[in-house]
Amino acid sequence: MPNVVEHTRATLNFSAGPAVLPESVLLQAREALWDIDDTGIGILEHSHRGPAVDRVFEEAKATCRRVGNIPDDFEVLFLQGGASLQFGMLAMAFLSTGRTGDYLHTGAWTKRAIADARVVGDVHVAFDGSNDDFRSIPEAADIAWSEHPAYAAYCSNNTIYGTRFDTAPDASAPLVADMSSEMFSRPIDWSKHAMVYAGGQKNLGPAGVTLAVIKRDFLELARRDLPDMLRYDLHASKDSRYNTPPVFAIYVCGLVLKWIEEMGGTEAMTARNDAKAKCIYDAIDSSGGFWKGHANSSCRSVMNIPFVSPTPEQDAEFLAIAAKAGMSGLKGHRSVGGLRASVYNAFPEQGCEALASLMRDFAKR
Amino acid sequence: MPNVVEHTRATLNFSAGPAVLPESVLLQAREALWDIDDTGIGILEHSHRGPAVDRVFEEAKATCRRVGNIPDDFEVLFLQGGASLQFGMLAMAFLSTGRTGDYLHTGAWTKRAIADARVVGDVHVAFDGSNDDFRSIPEAADIAWSEHPAYAAYCSNNTIYGTRFDTAPDASAPLVADMSSEMFSRPIDWSKHAMVYAGGQKNLGPAGVTLAVIKRDFLELARRDLPDMLRYDLHASKDSRYNTPPVFAIYVCGLVLKWIEEMGGTEAMTARNDAKAKCIYDAIDSSGGFWKGHANSSCRSVMNIPFVSPTPEQDAEFLAIAAKAGMSGLKGHRSVGGLRASVYNAFPEQGCEALASLMRDFAKR
Repeated sequence: MPNVVEHTRATLNFSAGPAVLPESVLLQAREALWDIDDTGIGILEHSHRGPAVDRVFEEAKATCRRVGNIPDDFEVLFLQGGASLQFGMLAMAFLSTGRTGDYLHTGAWTKRAIADARVVGDVHVAFDGSNDDFRSIPEAADIAWSEHPAYAAYCSNNTIYGTRFDTAPDASAPLVADMSSEMFSRPIDWSKHAMVYAGGQKNLGPAGVTLAVIKRDFLELARRDLPDMLRYDLHASKDSRYNTPPVFAIYVCGLVLKWIEEMGGTEAMTARNDAKAKCIYDAIDSSGGFWKGHANSSCRSVMNIPFVSPTPEQDAEFLAIAAKAGMSGLKGHRSVGGLRASVYNAFPEQGCEALASLMRDFAKR
Repeated sequence: MPNVVEHTRATLNFSAGPAVLPESVLLQAREALWDIDDTGIGILEHSHRGPAVDRVFEEAKATCRRVGNIPDDFEVLFLQGGASLQFGMLAMAFLSTGRTGDYLHTGAWTKRAIADARVVGDVHVAFDGSNDDFRSIPEAADIAWSEHPAYAAYCSNNTIYGTRFDTAPDASAPLVADMSSEMFSRPIDWSKHAMVYAGGQKNLGPAGVTLAVIKRDFLELARRDLPDMLRYDLHASKDSRYNTPPVFAIYVCGLVLKWIEEMGGTEAMTARNDAKAKCIYDAIDSSGGFWKGHANSSCRSVMNIPFVSPTPEQDAEFLAIAAKAGMSGLKGHRSVGGLRASVYNAFPEQGCEALASLMRDFAKR
């Protein structure tokens, strides 16, 4: 198992997504653009029903099952439209007349998911984190599920507010997780979930593909009287090729998944990611109050770390210094302000150390 | 203006889609995967709201407007889900209670479009080409539009049956065209259309992006009480960046559009494409009845040419010979059988000549 994440390019890319990819993946993708498998045809140009793409998709799916340790009674789908389309698709598929969707409201993405579901059916907000500016994640006692919801939905890691569920919540209804910003950064407890989905552009690959992993008995309950592309059952029965799928994005995901495997899998990723995040949180916590993280300490994300200095002017000054040091993508989201370091699977250890060192120096001045 | 489409790779790629791309585009995309604009970050890894992607999107859109000669009162949107998602989205957006969608049924794609619309609202089939196995395109006299449809939809080029509309049909309702398999292969008469859409993977770029060009006054009529990703108005007001768009696919589309411009634009493409198709149709028509095209002669597509020999055995034999000559993707679609040559914008002239020559030799034997 390689010791550290490769990093040879000049820039440290802290972007929240689309985000940094493993360099070895980029090098393989470059070759495949011109010619894949000595076919004389590039990966963008092959029929999605031909043997070259067959191999690519089979490998991507098989690697996904291995890396994710996905049980056999779950379907693995590669869809389009990002997590955002899943917000509406989920509600349209499962909120038939009289059914309610339960939501744990922990940030910007659950806000959108809830709004989409409200257009389609009934919604029950079982936890509302907006009161403390989404600094916290609910404990079991904070959650009030409704009587018989069609599903219970939550977002496991909140890109903007930098919080995450340490463990998946308990629910008696089918549990659905938006894991866009932390997919395969740590193992998933499938026994708790009916469905997990993730937009591709953070830990999986490029923008333009959504991974949806759905338990078959839950999928069976999905409505079929919908336009074809909104039907989970059709995507499953056609093995994600009902229409032309985003071939290149799936190809790159396959390479990223193989890379995770080579790096030791999601457990090794957990250790690496925990250490990477700790390095930055330590710089916050040891700054004597100069740096402040947005999330409550007990709810801290390992992927996205938003923090502020005492003033917006100092934030701007630090951003400029970091930019000179080759650090990109550190500006905080407009709803939180300050700075944000996104340190996904493919973000290198040395980048976290470099940022932490810069933060310590800046706080001391 | 360059005289011919570049072709240096060993294989002639006749795939119906995803399909061959200009080689110069692939070479640029390879560089950008590793690092675009000397940012030290590749095109897959840049934030979709950062300056590098700003430039890419602005250029892609501006080039699209120039190449397509798109009037100012049309919005240019880059969406996801292929033409297939447009089938349902169009119907959901415009078929409110009591409204009917009119369709000219000319093949496999209109079949799916009609089926999706029927799930959502009322459908009137104003022409049904299934009786003659979709060999023909309706004349004005063959079309019976309904009284006040919300829109009149057609597919301008039928990938599978190899037919196309020589000119857009006349309709008093807003006319909506699925141009997936011929987008920007010839000029578009915008005065006749309210909306044109196209999946990316034939003439535009890779799979995973859909171009939708919508007249503003038509777009204003679209329903807004839908999940966000199904709202045309939202995609328009957010300039195709309501959620994370398929950045790489849009980037490659931008390069392809620039390439079309450098090749002389859609009028030069028309001349080139007409000559390319004629070369193959001549080989069919001069074969003394050995080769038979599927489409009626008056309705022939310039992009997709399905044809058969007298027997499936001879089809198979020809396929094998063609494969040995480095020709790929010539197997016909299962619903028509035989062979199909797809010769989109980026397919090289020399490939058409090579195929025509092989067809003549084979017919003579």
